[in-house]
Amino acid sequence: MNHSTFVSPSTGRKVKAILFDTFGTVVDWRTGVAREARMFADKHGLTMEPFDLADTWRARYYPSMAPIRSGDRGYVPLDQLHFENLKTALAELGLPPSEFPDDDLLELTRAWERLPAWPDSVEGLKRMKARYIVGPLSNANTALLVSMAKSAGLPWDVVIGMDLLQVYKPDPAAYTGAAALLRLHPGEIMLAAAHNYDLQAARETGMATAFVRRATEHGPEQTTDLAPASDWDICVEDFTQLAQSLSAEPAATA
Amino acid sequence: MNHSTFVSPSTGRKVKAILFDTFGTVVDWRTGVAREARMFADKHGLTMEPFDLADTWRARYYPSMAPIRSGDRGYVPLDQLHFENLKTALAELGLPPSEFPDDDLLELTRAWERLPAWPDSVEGLKRMKARYIVGPLSNANTALLVSMAKSAGLPWDVVIGMDLLQVYKPDPAAYTGAAALLRLHPGEIMLAAAHNYDLQAARETGMATAFVRRATEHGPEQTTDLAPASDWDICVEDFTQLAQSLSAEPAATA
Repeated sequence: MNHSTFVSPSTGRKVKAILFDTFGTVVDWRTGVAREARMFADKHGLTMEPFDLADTWRARYYPSMAPIRSGDRGYVPLDQLHFENLKTALAELGLPPSEFPDDDLLELTRAWERLPAWPDSVEGLKRMKARYIVGPLSNANTALLVSMAKSAGLPWDVVIGMDLLQVYKPDPAAYTGAAALLRLHPGEIMLAAAHNYDLQAARETGMATAFVRRATEHGPEQTTDLAPASDWDICVEDFTQLAQSLSAEPAATA
Repeated sequence: MNHSTFVSPSTGRKVKAILFDTFGTVVDWRTGVAREARMFADKHGLTMEPFDLADTWRARYYPSMAPIRSGDRGYVPLDQLHFENLKTALAELGLPPSEFPDDDLLELTRAWERLPAWPDSVEGLKRMKARYIVGPLSNANTALLVSMAKSAGLPWDVVIGMDLLQVYKPDPAAYTGAAALLRLHPGEIMLAAAHNYDLQAARETGMATAFVRRATEHGPEQTTDLAPASDWDICVEDFTQLAQSLSAEPAATA
């Protein structure tokens, strides 16, 4: 491995690992889920618009974690939340989930393991991997992340699923726990994410930050996270630019 | 990823993941530690035989875990045991550890992160990675394993360090905990190891087993683990043969 050359302006430390938010940042969940929702609709003769299911399903993502974040519910892995949220989403779309076999709902839930990478993700990660430890720092559980990596060809060095830490981002323990597992100072880790709230939480635990704009994560009419909300260490359009910023000399950041 | 074609004769299940014992099975700890022991000896003007330090140091490995296995001591990561054991080993060789700066002892301890792979390991792992999830199932902690992988070029899909499970092999929880993290039935996981005791423990938790003979792990006069002690699913000479056995049809195992 070549050595890191990037010193974070905000942490003053040489970055040794780059951890990535996954859904939306590395992979295109909306396209991937809609693709499998279409297969599900065809199989069951539904007229449902596949992107509606993807959006309705994902809309349950943060609310379903709220009771776990607040301590009202014990930790359950994202796998299980996805399954529960699928049933809620179908019901919201007027499709009683009890009308479908559980096996079909479980199979559709596994769509989250088969999401396509954004076109620049794999090559960018390979370039960054030459100099840095790369891994996901995702709310997904380890098994889901490993399946996703095998399916999409994501060349992770280490997979940090939230089942290892039993919390959900943006709980500070998600970030500090990852640093402890890697035996690194938080300032030696950069979080790369398409979501400002995630970068803010990472910064508050002392991590370096990179904003990657994913302007169509939520489809062509996206209104959120279209621009960096703070002076993150790096702000780029894709992983190609991120790899470039991180391979350049310290002063040459984007 | 291509699909697995190997059904374990002992578990009757299609193998989906191959987990590897690391020290001795994937990497050559004796050569690697001796190499850095020689640098240490040169720096401090010692006449010590480097392989003596490697052997004496490693001889403390199992005894130092015993109090943790028995519950007399809480879990501490292997990093820390290695550091403690280095001091004991130096003392046994007549070299009081207090005569050396802690920084030099810590640097020598990091030799375990820079161990060379056996010549067949990396290519064999790459071949197996095409069909299976591959990862270490080692008594080392995650950070040590990630550093080792970066240094030696080990293409892991997932890194399961014992700090994730807070036990040491052959505690059954080391094997069942790894299966749970991967959301796999133990019978869908094969442990590959050069040590019969490790395979026995894996088998007792329901895993498939592969014995890889590493006849010089302990040097040219090795007397242990020169042959399989049971009817493991696969018995091979190296990772090339292991990859071959696992890519063949179910009946064509070694």
